[in-house]
Amino acid sequence: MINVGILGSTGRVGSLLIDDLELDQEANLSACHVVNKLKKSVPEGTVVTNDIRTLIDSCDVVIDFSAPAATQSLLEEVVENGGKPLVIATTGFNKHQQNLLIEASKIVPVLYATNMSLGIAVLNKLVSLASKALRDFDCEIVEQHHRYKVDSPSGTALTLAEHAARARDLDLDTVRVSGRDGVIGARTKDEIGVMSLRGGDIVGKHTVGLYNDGEFIELHHTATSRNTFSKGAIKAAKWLINQEAGLYSINDCLGL
Amino acid sequence: MINVGILGSTGRVGSLLIDDLELDQEANLSACHVVNKLKKSVPEGTVVTNDIRTLIDSCDVVIDFSAPAATQSLLEEVVENGGKPLVIATTGFNKHQQNLLIEASKIVPVLYATNMSLGIAVLNKLVSLASKALRDFDCEIVEQHHRYKVDSPSGTALTLAEHAARARDLDLDTVRVSGRDGVIGARTKDEIGVMSLRGGDIVGKHTVGLYNDGEFIELHHTATSRNTFSKGAIKAAKWLINQEAGLYSINDCLGL
Amino acid sequence: MINVGILGSTGRVGSLLIDDLELDQEANLSACHVVNKLKKSVPEGTVVTNDIRTLIDSCDVVIDFSAPAATQSLLEEVVENGGKPLVIATTGFNKHQQNLLIEASKIVPVLYATNMSLGIAVLNKLVSLASKALRDFDCEIVEQHHRYKVDSPSGTALTLAEHAARARDLDLDTVRVSGRDGVIGARTKDEIGVMSLRGGDIVGKHTVGLYNDGEFIELHHTATSRNTFSKGAIKAAKWLINQEAGLYSINDCLGL
Amino acid sequence: MINVGILGSTGRVGSLLIDDLELDQEANLSACHVVNKLKKSVPEGTVVTNDIRTLIDSCDVVIDFSAPAATQSLLEEVVENGGKPLVIATTGFNKHQQNLLIEASKIVPVLYATNMSLGIAVLNKLVSLASKALRDFDCEIVEQHHRYKVDSPSGTALTLAEHAARARDLDLDTVRVSGRDGVIGARTKDEIGVMSLRGGDIVGKHTVGLYNDGEFIELHHTATSRNTFSKGAIKAAKWLINQEAGLYSINDCLGL
Repeated sequence: MINVGILGSTGRVGSLLIDDLELDQEANLSACHVVNKLKKSVPEGTVVTNDIRTLIDSCDVVIDFSAPAATQSLLEEVVENGGKPLVIATTGFNKHQQNLLIEASKIVPVLYATNMSLGIAVLNKLVSLASKALRDFDCEIVEQHHRYKVDSPSGTALTLAEHAARARDLDLDTVRVSGRDGVIGARTKDEIGVMSLRGGDIVGKHTVGLYNDGEFIELHHTATSRNTFSKGAIKAAKWLINQEAGLYSINDCLGL
Repeated sequence: MINVGILGSTGRVGSLLIDDLELDQEANLSACHVVNKLKKSVPEGTVVTNDIRTLIDSCDVVIDFSAPAATQSLLEEVVENGGKPLVIATTGFNKHQQNLLIEASKIVPVLYATNMSLGIAVLNKLVSLASKALRDFDCEIVEQHHRYKVDSPSGTALTLAEHAARARDLDLDTVRVSGRDGVIGARTKDEIGVMSLRGGDIVGKHTVGLYNDGEFIELHHTATSRNTFSKGAIKAAKWLINQEAGLYSINDCLGL
Repeated sequence: MINVGILGSTGRVGSLLIDDLELDQEANLSACHVVNKLKKSVPEGTVVTNDIRTLIDSCDVVIDFSAPAATQSLLEEVVENGGKPLVIATTGFNKHQQNLLIEASKIVPVLYATNMSLGIAVLNKLVSLASKALRDFDCEIVEQHHRYKVDSPSGTALTLAEHAARARDLDLDTVRVSGRDGVIGARTKDEIGVMSLRGGDIVGKHTVGLYNDGEFIELHHTATSRNTFSKGAIKAAKWLINQEAGLYSINDCLGL
Repeated sequence: MINVGILGSTGRVGSLLIDDLELDQEANLSACHVVNKLKKSVPEGTVVTNDIRTLIDSCDVVIDFSAPAATQSLLEEVVENGGKPLVIATTGFNKHQQNLLIEASKIVPVLYATNMSLGIAVLNKLVSLASKALRDFDCEIVEQHHRYKVDSPSGTALTLAEHAARARDLDLDTVRVSGRDGVIGARTKDEIGVMSLRGGDIVGKHTVGLYNDGEFIELHHTATSRNTFSKGAIKAAKWLINQEAGLYSINDCLGL
């Protein structure tokens, strides 16, 4: 039985993690990190703490669906004092935090994925392949999430865009466009539009389009429930505890 | 037989207008306004001119698929010296040009439509109805056009957005959002996203979405060929020559 | 406080009804009809019965998300011995059962809807309007549900198709097509395709398309959670108890 | 300069082939097979014939966008008396005709593709990859064409379905479903729905969906003009004349 510690246990996916771990045959919840108070009941014996070190020491693997600042604390602690395998699903890191992630991965195995679903892992692969094979096609990405999402574009959309850009030897930061308004002129060949729609309770929709004269392709993913993410993270955690230190993706876990 | 004069005869739709008028049983091409040279052959006897007055005097009705500056010259000439019924399909007017349009419509019948298709006229009506009935749903609009389109969003998308906004007593200029990037916070209740995608040879796609907890609606239109616009304009012209001075929409023409 | 009795309380939506009634401020669960055993706990004092008469006598209004045979028993009991207002959401009735519904509505108010969502009610209205205004456009409908749905097409798809057909004075039974395979020749003008896709855990997606030369329109609805149906039914029940005997639709309830 | 002979020169794509060959720098039209009369003018010197042998003898490569019976005559002539490289884009062959295709490919190079577009070639590859990686996902395919298409499903949809089936070691003939109507029970794990929509002037749309609990993927292709097919066939012909006898796909031509 694998003991899982959760960072971000009061968030949407963190809360589902608690439920899904209760049903899991091979993993169970051993520790929750909370700043104030846990919103829901956890099994007797679960360590509930606001101390990162205690969280790390009370589990075999940490699953993190928190926010950049909390993840930063976790990574700093691991870099300074050692840690456990880390499954990181937080998005919106700055450069410093990205570097910390790399530092931590030299000490423990770290699986970093902006989206824990199997379908998105496959989609990333298809996007690389199609973006390269259809080099002359214009690439545009649309992502859609619920009305409460505070950051744009989604981490998943950025990852998809990076796969599309890298397949064409382009630098995403240079070619990404996040809005169009006014007389902006014809589309440039290499730009990649990444547009964000917000509304309702949509869990997550992503479409990568490739458009040419005479034809176009659209590669689409919809998440119909957030359990896709919590179950994916548990699956990743089970795989990660048997790996050596290093930075892994969900593809490594799935053998894609 | 109705004699049609074209402003913008070297543009994409202008060129199709010439073809479609050749096949029409009740209307024919009598005059073309060109700045430099006509790209294609026109029937013998057609007046080809770079003078707006000559264009007006050589037809029963003007169809205009040009650009704001050219339309402005046409409207100024009509306001100062009188004119003929005007079917205007140009987009991207500034406030001054919009006022000129209203002035001209006091002198001659003016049908103004950012999109001459029957389907778009119906869609505008459906959007008004749905936006009002589903007042609590978040509204997001996506439009998509070929890689050569220079302005964003499309005139059609703005008209759809105005129908959605007006049905909720909102001012579009205040609530319209044309891009999202960074940590911008949760969606506000009244904002209306209008996002522009560009690529390939797409004639025109528009989707108006209404999103709520538990469900959403999407109302979509695709133009599969530009003849939809030229044929719609000819249909509008036939109707407009029998109207009194005033400002009309494609809905008036269709009796919607 | 309105006392609600549930027929079909062990089904997917029936189960959500129990949850949603627990949270509702103006309605509560007073009785459940079950054939064998209830799968989940209900508030103390709830009448749990396998007798239709007892169900009726233990509530102010019945909400029915069961199957045709169970609904038939309910309707027969009401026709023979009187009853309470009925909110019926069961689909797949035969002619005899449809007639029973009409008979029952002469005795008590009956609200019958194959889909209890607000969005679908609006979509039905839009489809009527568009199908009539765009009489020359070919109409095709696609519905999509989870892999466990046993009947095709969905009741909602059939209701949408009826709205499309009626707007063109067509008889749906005559023009409906549910599959195409082989050399079947060109499409006839009046046929209405109603195609069913099945897979995954999709709650419900419906698209009504209208296709013509040069353009097409697609009107789409997605249900993202089944609570849309249970909450809609509770809303309908609150409205129905104040109505006289008669057959009502969700539109009547919403004042559409 | 490569001399191209056309079988099916009075059809929709055949007619575009004549136009596209006129603009091509490396290939030109040398012969047309017609049963009755050619609908459009061809360059002086073009052989116009109703004899298959004369067609073959008057070109370096035959491009065939005809119907199964005409293709059968072509293949029989090649098998009996020898021939030229063949680009075959006809769909709807019976078993006998499929065998003839294989026989002919032992004598001359034959490129057979139900769809000549680059995008569809890539889509077939993505479908194979995704269908295998997401083995637990339910597979459903939808294709949509103009109102005049006489056969269902499209050859392209069948090819996509074959890629999906083969990746799972399934026999398409056994698992394909072309319609759903009535109480047909829950979806079986292995079935592959292939549904055909017809209407308007749609050139061709294909969507392959993979649906699971919590998420789904949809891989989509739209042809926006038929020139995609004629230009693709010319590109294939230029490649094919340098190959040895054998049966090739568009993927071989593209090096996918």
